[in-house]
Amino acid sequence: MSEKAIAYLKENRSNLLEKMNEFLSIPSVSTDSEYKQDVEKAADFLVAYLEKLQFEKIEKMETAGHPLVYGEYNGAGADAPTVLFYGHYDVQPADPLEQWKSEPFSPEVRDGRLYARGSSDDKGQVFMHLAVFEAYMETEGSLPVNVKVCIEGEEEIGSENLYEILHEQKDKFQADFAVISDSGMVAKNQPTILYGLKGFTGIEITVTGPDHDLHSGMYGGAVRNPIMALSQILASMKDENEIITVDGFYDGVYPLTGEERELMKKAPGEDFVAATGIPETASEQGYTPQEHTMGRPTFEINGIYGGYQGEGTKTIIPSEATAKITCRLVPGQDPERIQQLLEDHVLKHTPSGVNVEVKKERLSAKAYKVEPDHPLIQKAAESYTKAFGKETVYVRMGGSIPVVEWIDAIYKMPIVLLGFGTPEDRLHSPNESFPLDSFDRGMETLIYYWDKVRAN
Amino acid sequence: MSEKAIAYLKENRSNLLEKMNEFLSIPSVSTDSEYKQDVEKAADFLVAYLEKLQFEKIEKMETAGHPLVYGEYNGAGADAPTVLFYGHYDVQPADPLEQWKSEPFSPEVRDGRLYARGSSDDKGQVFMHLAVFEAYMETEGSLPVNVKVCIEGEEEIGSENLYEILHEQKDKFQADFAVISDSGMVAKNQPTILYGLKGFTGIEITVTGPDHDLHSGMYGGAVRNPIMALSQILASMKDENEIITVDGFYDGVYPLTGEERELMKKAPGEDFVAATGIPETASEQGYTPQEHTMGRPTFEINGIYGGYQGEGTKTIIPSEATAKITCRLVPGQDPERIQQLLEDHVLKHTPSGVNVEVKKERLSAKAYKVEPDHPLIQKAAESYTKAFGKETVYVRMGGSIPVVEWIDAIYKMPIVLLGFGTPEDRLHSPNESFPLDSFDRGMETLIYYWDKVRAN
Repeated sequence: MSEKAIAYLKENRSNLLEKMNEFLSIPSVSTDSEYKQDVEKAADFLVAYLEKLQFEKIEKMETAGHPLVYGEYNGAGADAPTVLFYGHYDVQPADPLEQWKSEPFSPEVRDGRLYARGSSDDKGQVFMHLAVFEAYMETEGSLPVNVKVCIEGEEEIGSENLYEILHEQKDKFQADFAVISDSGMVAKNQPTILYGLKGFTGIEITVTGPDHDLHSGMYGGAVRNPIMALSQILASMKDENEIITVDGFYDGVYPLTGEERELMKKAPGEDFVAATGIPETASEQGYTPQEHTMGRPTFEINGIYGGYQGEGTKTIIPSEATAKITCRLVPGQDPERIQQLLEDHVLKHTPSGVNVEVKKERLSAKAYKVEPDHPLIQKAAESYTKAFGKETVYVRMGGSIPVVEWIDAIYKMPIVLLGFGTPEDRLHSPNESFPLDSFDRGMETLIYYWDKVRAN
Repeated sequence: MSEKAIAYLKENRSNLLEKMNEFLSIPSVSTDSEYKQDVEKAADFLVAYLEKLQFEKIEKMETAGHPLVYGEYNGAGADAPTVLFYGHYDVQPADPLEQWKSEPFSPEVRDGRLYARGSSDDKGQVFMHLAVFEAYMETEGSLPVNVKVCIEGEEEIGSENLYEILHEQKDKFQADFAVISDSGMVAKNQPTILYGLKGFTGIEITVTGPDHDLHSGMYGGAVRNPIMALSQILASMKDENEIITVDGFYDGVYPLTGEERELMKKAPGEDFVAATGIPETASEQGYTPQEHTMGRPTFEINGIYGGYQGEGTKTIIPSEATAKITCRLVPGQDPERIQQLLEDHVLKHTPSGVNVEVKKERLSAKAYKVEPDHPLIQKAAESYTKAFGKETVYVRMGGSIPVVEWIDAIYKMPIVLLGFGTPEDRLHSPNESFPLDSFDRGMETLIYYWDKVRAN
């Protein structure tokens, strides 16, 4: 089957690119209500495409925000597996506009890359799936697998309505496994299996002392300084070896196996010093930077503020100080339990003479991990290698994709993350782009993959 | 002598009040160039007054900023001591205007208090000295002491030009001792000798990590967090017992003697909890809040900032974080040495993976202290007690008055701080006021004092 579909993609490459450009030209910015009609237009584009592909039960599901596009293909037969394909058609705002070398919503090819907002995140990758379905329909008249399509318009604003829908309409989205292409490879043309994502939680700590800023000459020596109290609390939470010193924080953490460490070593690592300008890396004692970013939990202070922040000096004891903290979690850690441990620690380490308040982040997520030797993962790795002509590497990622955790928690189905982006794509930044290599070989990978899944 | 002069003040009270109101009505706001002419006008008022008092060598000394008013009285004879009287005729801005119950530059008496900007700080207190000189001249035809008057127009903006002048024209300002009335009593009608002021210094610490804010999912685990590094540095500088843990910080500090602790106990202490709303006080182990504020050095973080400070969460590792620190010093501590100790400590306690920069505050000052049993202080205490009918208390203050330190350092002369303000005067705030009690009894105190100094 694959040969014909692949041939179709080659013959129709310029048509397909033109059609993708039509999709990318719609400024479907979800965060800005000025673009509401464009967001609708992008959803309509998908609905029309699914209709052309002879999908059934196609729906533009209205939500409290932007619509979710749903559709089913059941023509592969009862013996074929059903895949839930998730993607999103909304994009980040294009600002700052003046930094774009070409118009964000007028796609342009330069040096083998297609420049447009959403080209990599995620409209380009969504389009690749639809184009692959088209290739099958036009050459074989059917798809090798049954498909449920779920393409939302609110990923860039937190997917809150999707969260509700996934919980409330379980039957609708139930499938044998899920495929998501909303991530990247560790390097251009380096086939990459992403088999784990970190979870996420956070707290905000506010230390309050006097009810107004005080003259340090009049009150210094009688009043606990809230910034110092906050610093002492924060410093008690992590030591200089980057070990998190909150009681119970590491309880239940799945250890990194020797096998995983080997897999991680094989993945081409980023040069952290060159990429960030730091004098040297700093990681949890006993782990390399790569092991820590991929496979160990983290604790970061994202922001801090209190007292006088202007030019020069103001001799006050400030009335309060606040720190924002988020943690990235690994399998075995429960976000709510971690929040509780953090709060307990803060309360225990707050000195006398000040009050403290801990606010818990509402949106938390567990980590996700699939075994790298799962058959659905192995087939994906083989497909990548065949399409790109290079051995596939296996990585876990320090970031979080909430929808992955939700699908895992609600449906307990395996999730295969088939990303084709590259580290140079500049997601969320000016001059977002996607390599045409990834477009071509990525679609080839998908065709090999569906065939292999069907052949099972 | 005193009786006649005191009688003069009583008889001419309403004239003198009217004249003071004329002075207070001039909006001599030094910080705002819009008021430049008014500042000149206030200086001219003083020049005219000194002329009427038959002072010699009267000068409106031009500076790079506002003029300094100088004058000499040498009629007390060669055997009489010479006093340098320092004060300032500039005032803080009146904003926010809408919070004033009467116009800031239209003095109004309510409930025994005169409301006007500068009534307490410092025009009212400067005027009292001139009125006392007038009382002597009108009744005795001479003053009991020789006087050098130095009234500047830039105290509220840092006295930088005065600093230069005091250094460059030493002979001009040389005297046997100095008197300054730019402070207050610990409570209304509670005679108070302020015999010590703290010194002052500061540093600003900036910790720099990556050259831009990083995604915590991509780099968390490889990069030292600058806010955490800063917190660890700060927490290493003071412990939970409010003891400053910077090596050598307390070296050379003059210990609080048992006698001083007794003096401090006698001074009516402020209720720190009620005044500030803190849950409880926090002071250096082994010292009461009063002892610490008055007589022990302090270390305060005045402000801190870094990373994301908006609503909600932003999962970044920030590129840098900054803390502003000032210390109040006691006799025996050298500000420049303290800055060096702080810098050394910071450099030593900075973890790997970040850079740190320490910026030293330019304007530092040593602490000032005169022995409470110095004869010039004892005479002041007796004069207070006689005028107010109440035993005088002795206090040291946590605040700093830079000009005191400069006069001390340059001229090595004793400085007597004769303050008549009260804690309720609302200096620098809307509705500044000065009790008429303080006006009457303060002038009486000055008359007793000059007589006693002369009688020596």
